[in-house]
Amino acid sequence: QSCNQGEADKLNVHIVPHTHDDVGWLKTVDQYYYGANSSIAWAGVQYILDTVVQQLSVDPTRRFIYVEVAFFSRWWREQNTEVQQEVKRLVQEGRLEFILGGWSMNDEAATHYNAIIDQMTLGLRFLNDTFGPCARPRVAWQIDPFGHSREQASLFAQMGFDGLFFGRLDYQDKETREMKLKMEEIWRGSQSLHHPEADLFTGLNENGYNPPAGFCFDAYCKDDPIMDDPTLEDNNVKQKVDDFISAAHKQAKHFRTNHIMMTMGSDFQYSNAKAWFKNLDKLMKYVNSAVRYKNCFFLWSVKSDDFFPYADAPHQFWTGYFTSRPGLKGYVRESNKYLQVCNQLETVAHLRSGMKSNLRTSKSNVLRAAMGVAQHHDAVSGTSKQHVANDYAKRLYIGNHRVAFKTFYNLVKNCLFLQGGRHCKDVISSVITEGSSNLTFCDYMNITLCDFTQNSNRFTAVVYNPLARAVSKYIRIPVDCTPSYIFVVIELVTGARLTTQLVPVSEATESVRRNRGNANCELVFLAKLPALGYNSFSIEKYKSSATNKRLFTPKGKVVNPSDDITISNEFYSVNFNRNSGLMDSIVNIESGIKIPVHQDMLWYNGSMGNNASKQQSGAYIFRPNSSTPFHCSNDGKVKLSVLTGSNPLVQEVYQKFSDWAYQVVRLYKGIKHIEVEWTVGPIPVKDQWGKEVISRYETNIDSNGYFYTDANGREVLERKKNYRPTWKLNQTEPVAGNYYPVNSRIYIRDAHVQLTVLTDRSQGGSSLSSGALELMVHRRLLGEDSKGVAEPLNETGQFGDGLITRGKHWLLLDTVTSSAKQHRLLGEEAFMSPLVPHQADSWFNLDLALFFLIQSFIVNPLPPNIHLLTLATTNSGELLVRLEHQFAKHDDDVLSQPVTVSLKGLIKNFEVKIVDELLLGGNALKNTINRLQW
Amino acid sequence: QSCNQGEADKLNVHIVPHTHDDVGWLKTVDQYYYGANSSIAWAGVQYILDTVVQQLSVDPTRRFIYVEVAFFSRWWREQNTEVQQEVKRLVQEGRLEFILGGWSMNDEAATHYNAIIDQMTLGLRFLNDTFGPCARPRVAWQIDPFGHSREQASLFAQMGFDGLFFGRLDYQDKETREMKLKMEEIWRGSQSLHHPEADLFTGLNENGYNPPAGFCFDAYCKDDPIMDDPTLEDNNVKQKVDDFISAAHKQAKHFRTNHIMMTMGSDFQYSNAKAWFKNLDKLMKYVNSAVRYKNCFFLWSVKSDDFFPYADAPHQFWTGYFTSRPGLKGYVRESNKYLQVCNQLETVAHLRSGMKSNLRTSKSNVLRAAMGVAQHHDAVSGTSKQHVANDYAKRLYIGNHRVAFKTFYNLVKNCLFLQGGRHCKDVISSVITEGSSNLTFCDYMNITLCDFTQNSNRFTAVVYNPLARAVSKYIRIPVDCTPSYIFVVIELVTGARLTTQLVPVSEATESVRRNRGNANCELVFLAKLPALGYNSFSIEKYKSSATNKRLFTPKGKVVNPSDDITISNEFYSVNFNRNSGLMDSIVNIESGIKIPVHQDMLWYNGSMGNNASKQQSGAYIFRPNSSTPFHCSNDGKVKLSVLTGSNPLVQEVYQKFSDWAYQVVRLYKGIKHIEVEWTVGPIPVKDQWGKEVISRYETNIDSNGYFYTDANGREVLERKKNYRPTWKLNQTEPVAGNYYPVNSRIYIRDAHVQLTVLTDRSQGGSSLSSGALELMVHRRLLGEDSKGVAEPLNETGQFGDGLITRGKHWLLLDTVTSSAKQHRLLGEEAFMSPLVPHQADSWFNLDLALFFLIQSFIVNPLPPNIHLLTLATTNSGELLVRLEHQFAKHDDDVLSQPVTVSLKGLIKNFEVKIVDELLLGGNALKNTINRLQW
Repeated sequence: QSCNQGEADKLNVHIVPHTHDDVGWLKTVDQYYYGANSSIAWAGVQYILDTVVQQLSVDPTRRFIYVEVAFFSRWWREQNTEVQQEVKRLVQEGRLEFILGGWSMNDEAATHYNAIIDQMTLGLRFLNDTFGPCARPRVAWQIDPFGHSREQASLFAQMGFDGLFFGRLDYQDKETREMKLKMEEIWRGSQSLHHPEADLFTGLNENGYNPPAGFCFDAYCKDDPIMDDPTLEDNNVKQKVDDFISAAHKQAKHFRTNHIMMTMGSDFQYSNAKAWFKNLDKLMKYVNSAVRYKNCFFLWSVKSDDFFPYADAPHQFWTGYFTSRPGLKGYVRESNKYLQVCNQLETVAHLRSGMKSNLRTSKSNVLRAAMGVAQHHDAVSGTSKQHVANDYAKRLYIGNHRVAFKTFYNLVKNCLFLQGGRHCKDVISSVITEGSSNLTFCDYMNITLCDFTQNSNRFTAVVYNPLARAVSKYIRIPVDCTPSYIFVVIELVTGARLTTQLVPVSEATESVRRNRGNANCELVFLAKLPALGYNSFSIEKYKSSATNKRLFTPKGKVVNPSDDITISNEFYSVNFNRNSGLMDSIVNIESGIKIPVHQDMLWYNGSMGNNASKQQSGAYIFRPNSSTPFHCSNDGKVKLSVLTGSNPLVQEVYQKFSDWAYQVVRLYKGIKHIEVEWTVGPIPVKDQWGKEVISRYETNIDSNGYFYTDANGREVLERKKNYRPTWKLNQTEPVAGNYYPVNSRIYIRDAHVQLTVLTDRSQGGSSLSSGALELMVHRRLLGEDSKGVAEPLNETGQFGDGLITRGKHWLLLDTVTSSAKQHRLLGEEAFMSPLVPHQADSWFNLDLALFFLIQSFIVNPLPPNIHLLTLATTNSGELLVRLEHQFAKHDDDVLSQPVTVSLKGLIKNFEVKIVDELLLGGNALKNTINRLQW
Repeated sequence: QSCNQGEADKLNVHIVPHTHDDVGWLKTVDQYYYGANSSIAWAGVQYILDTVVQQLSVDPTRRFIYVEVAFFSRWWREQNTEVQQEVKRLVQEGRLEFILGGWSMNDEAATHYNAIIDQMTLGLRFLNDTFGPCARPRVAWQIDPFGHSREQASLFAQMGFDGLFFGRLDYQDKETREMKLKMEEIWRGSQSLHHPEADLFTGLNENGYNPPAGFCFDAYCKDDPIMDDPTLEDNNVKQKVDDFISAAHKQAKHFRTNHIMMTMGSDFQYSNAKAWFKNLDKLMKYVNSAVRYKNCFFLWSVKSDDFFPYADAPHQFWTGYFTSRPGLKGYVRESNKYLQVCNQLETVAHLRSGMKSNLRTSKSNVLRAAMGVAQHHDAVSGTSKQHVANDYAKRLYIGNHRVAFKTFYNLVKNCLFLQGGRHCKDVISSVITEGSSNLTFCDYMNITLCDFTQNSNRFTAVVYNPLARAVSKYIRIPVDCTPSYIFVVIELVTGARLTTQLVPVSEATESVRRNRGNANCELVFLAKLPALGYNSFSIEKYKSSATNKRLFTPKGKVVNPSDDITISNEFYSVNFNRNSGLMDSIVNIESGIKIPVHQDMLWYNGSMGNNASKQQSGAYIFRPNSSTPFHCSNDGKVKLSVLTGSNPLVQEVYQKFSDWAYQVVRLYKGIKHIEVEWTVGPIPVKDQWGKEVISRYETNIDSNGYFYTDANGREVLERKKNYRPTWKLNQTEPVAGNYYPVNSRIYIRDAHVQLTVLTDRSQGGSSLSSGALELMVHRRLLGEDSKGVAEPLNETGQFGDGLITRGKHWLLLDTVTSSAKQHRLLGEEAFMSPLVPHQADSWFNLDLALFFLIQSFIVNPLPPNIHLLTLATTNSGELLVRLEHQFAKHDDDVLSQPVTVSLKGLIKNFEVKIVDELLLGGNALKNTINRLQW
């Protein structure tokens, strides 16, 4: 109601005062909040909110929009009642309007949809809890992220947003749209949902998110203020008015209606709101009446693809950040799982406690907020300064260790084991306790290090499965496997002794493992896990003797092959060429597909600029110096070795491409995918060449330039080399200009065969020739791409060397029709893999039986096409449940079909009284919201 | 009453929030006001006042001091009644306190006392007119000027200030004072006035005018804010509290009482006042109680010298700015005269008009404000950026041409001539009229150019004498003196034909005169002028013919002498050596004193830094590379020439030291001083050597290291080489460390003889050896002294060459006892020399008689020891008169005596009804003020 509707026959210029407050970038989020560390930038959000609120208060004609709840919530809790009441009044009157309303303005390329939904929920529910429904953001505002995902549009639509505005899109795309009056259109966010459920009105900002040239009135700007005192020098009123009207007319030429928006603000602006408002007041006073205008029609075009990749000029493709900081990207993905587990366990404890009161004191918001911050478009994107990236990781670490892991410990020890509702309450309300947990969560499992497991003779692994369906998972535990020991693994609930296997630790991470423990093997066993529950395994270590000889755990030996190698399980057979050391072919045994698959690790040399453009490769930008990458192996030969022995559970092939690039290819017994574990780093830069490392697969699949990538880990979009669906592309970067974000999967296919690669984190990927597919796994650069972060992307590890990163790709080779059901489920499992804490035997010896009886928190496991996306308890004590059909419309004949699930039998101890369908953000009842119809 | 008195047994820390707003420096005054031209700095004073007032309004515990009325008055007139009422309330409650209250914070080295008083009056009266007596500043605040003058202290005392605070003093002086607890003492500002009339409590700020390290909370600072949210990172409350208490204790050790002041603010700070106040609030909350303290005694020491020169570190003497921008310094001095004339004439018009109403609409405030701005410590000091120096000059030009000269024109034409009070009213209220004045004020008289006089065959010179006593002055008018013309000058009131002489134009300014007119001679005649009035002279030019041969004006010829030269008049004889080309000796004919006087022009090479210190010579700093200057004449020989002929009025000797350094030495008939006109520039810098040009006199006067310089053109202080009266000097710069400001005069003497040099503008000067005396007249530098202005002092003229500057020194050689009466009166005449506009004959032909009858506006001329410092009309329609005894206590046996003057007979048309004695600033009745007694 507070909107100015404008006049029908005039050009209506909507002045939108706003600030863009990065939740960390050049400074950490808290430094930005306070305005600390100001040698980097003064930017202090506390002052923005202080002064904006004050300036709104003194003049009822003033408006402001605010976006980032991570900042707003910090500020809010410092205000006294008087200020809070005033802010409520401003919100009620529509003068302070929240838009977007996420905890942060999340990245769209490197984020998982689960994390996006969570971070939006955190912000939106804060607004709803604080201000009620009147504060619900109607407009999504993604002005700064460097490219835009279709899934994001779909999510926004499902969250009830009426529209989306953003600023960054390909410069060619923008030019075309300006010409064709397509700066506003309808974006169809989903191929599976019924229209208009995922349709979203989308407006592209004329000036990114900045004011027109000459009208920035912030202390950060160099533009002159409106100088209107006739007795002083430099009076510029006429000039300013002329310039403004001219800018308005220029902008209006690109839009279909007689309403245009001017974004009056920018990064961390309005810390001195008076300066902005004073000059805007003067500007509006002097411009006071817009000019007659008639060009006005309302037929909106529709777009179904996305806005990747983003280039702001020739040769300047923002496709490097799809991979930048792979370690942080991996940790964010992992932390997402911890948050989900924390949510699940907090809910279980809540149900068992019988608590009906609100959970506002829950400490889990620390992790929730850390994850919210981590989704920011300079966080998981990898585009912050190094010290800020450290701060993001630290926040996640604190959230994981102080919240998620303690919740787990308290739940298992106090709430479940002791069976007392009273103690469950403790779990919920004070999971941050002093003292250490008796459960050990090892942080260095990725480099096969765990003090606890490698030094204990007897301990229990509590393996928790956060999926709502049962799974079997191979568990690998770092142990000391000197020949004198033998290992026994017993499933506690059945007493069954499990098959085990020992695998020697790879040399790839030796440089960072040094002197940090004596784990020299991984103990492998298969854990059968109940839906949404846990199973416990006792791991016992004995000194070997003649009497226990039959218990000896098989331990393979790594040898250099004398011939080509083939490893196989029930499903796949993978062949390696002894001469090249590379993967050569893959056979899908069931389907009979056998194709050559040539896999290699290579690197592009990051450009330091050339005659065509000064653009360098950097944290944002990917720009290879040449389209032809170099082999990671200096001589083109890869050192190949293989695990020999009985290997009852896993077969492994080892590839050493160089001192800093390793791979293990694995086939597990009974597991229908090929696991490729890559370890890359320290990327050498002594030659002064920045390097961007890729894993490339070359096959004979007739993919013909087409390939497929997921959007935020959910729906999949078709890509075509050197092509954009909505405009004729003038390609300036043959490699970087074909890169797309890969959050969970990328595949190529022809009429029959599909090669799918799933990832454990977000990466950039492409298909640059028919049958080929590549993923960038790591990058280290010495140049700077001049997009603001002002630091080379040159991550170093604990010992000052370049950072080593390890990750996994999972390969599926199958028919096109049977691929989706595999990659959908495998993707879900990869993303919600089991949590494996360990415990000493002592503390729960009292009453093991009671403990073991409780294994699953769910009554009926969910069918495979339904993912339990969210099981959480809200501040008001209600359960927030998100069930997701995880198959797209045409993914699979069977699994893509609708399916019915009973909420009644979902969670134990859960009696359904009322079910309300909410918007996706959880901040409003769905039936109370009428989105605008376009 | 609003002051916090503190507690007796505690250390009381007075937090003083303030901003320091330069009235032009890196940006012009209006750019600073608005925050324009922000590529240099954002600094916007409008926002400072906006946000400070707002922040004071919302919290009654907050205080702020404000200083510069040039800015405040701009801001005030833009505010609506509501804001003005709020500001009045804040002032009334003592929460917004004006201190100093001048139009600007004037420089103390290069300013004349007349201009200081005027600029203070302008500001103080504005405050009084706007807020009444409660706003009267009690404390003078000279935190930034680069050294401090005793005269300034005396003026402040006479203005009723209770105390003075400043920040810049010699670092050795400061160390000594800190140790001796002399950071606060009584400054005795005058040797002539009775104590304590010129005594002033003076406090030296611990941190200049900045906060203690770590406590600057402005956007300009890099210090962290107080971060007190326990849930955020980087909480620093304990650290900040500890640091603050430690800083307070450290500071307290230098002070005698248990009260210390912390200056919380700096240059252009508080543009976002919220940031400062929010953090100060937190700081005070957390520090909340100061620590027990006892060291407390109240015996103040007394100081009688001044704080020149200022050095902030070894080798860093701020003595360059005594001379920097000699052109601007000269124009400021000249404009002071125009302002006084404008004041005088406005008053005459006011009295004749019979107006009793207020003069708030008077346009003369434009000139008054321009002069106020020009006194700023980066204006007349020469330490602003070039574009700002241009702005200062432009403001003066506008003030002079649109106000002073138009006032003169209107007064003479409309008010006096037409005799109508109605028209006098016009003169007062709207002197800025469109169209040109019929009086011509030539701007280029300094280079002997005046289109009007050189092209007119008949015109009138209206010579106005702003002194309240009669004087006779030689007038020099540029004319075309080709042989075929003769000139006749007639004093109109008597019809007498005057003796005239033609003098050829010097070659020194040929490079800037080129193509700008055909004046090739100056026509010289002696004008007898009434006190505070004018005399008119008709100048007629005739073609020469046989019949008017007897009227031929003598025209000397410049020739190179074949022998030594002597020129003489009734009083002096000056000898020049033909070989050296230099002045050799001077004879005072009356007293019989004859001494060798060797005068030369030399230059110091400005240092670019050396091993001892990186300090370079710059706008602020004078640092010669060597103590031995170079001769301006390359070969040490000066080209000498002399004016030969009958020369009835003036004798001249010409010296060409080089292509860029010239001198004329003149003796006028009947005039008891030697005039030395120097013309310097363009100073060559192609050799990459910056040059600082001096005029040096060497005599046999046994001055023994002592010399004497004036303070702001008024009282004189004794100086001694390598010596400071209050501490043992460790001299690091043998030349620059002995330089002092010379505003009007410098002299050396022994028991009998005194050599006095008077200047036409402020310059630096010294006596570096017995009998020697030098003045720096011009400087051009290529380095930068790193004191903030960030530009080399490298002035260029209209044609891109280095600036040429011309000025005058007046020499007196006489007995010590008879010198003062000469230099006091000559100083007054130099400083208030006649104004000489010209007019065509046409427009006042109507009734010449009426016009000529009015010559003097004064009834009884003042005695010579009384100077009419101010004759002005206030906004409320009263006359503001300042009469000044211009002789110091022991200057002269006769003229130093008290003298009585009748106000009744002072000004014509002036009926005295009430006389009130005001404070020197004119802002309060003297008898209503009780200054604090120390």
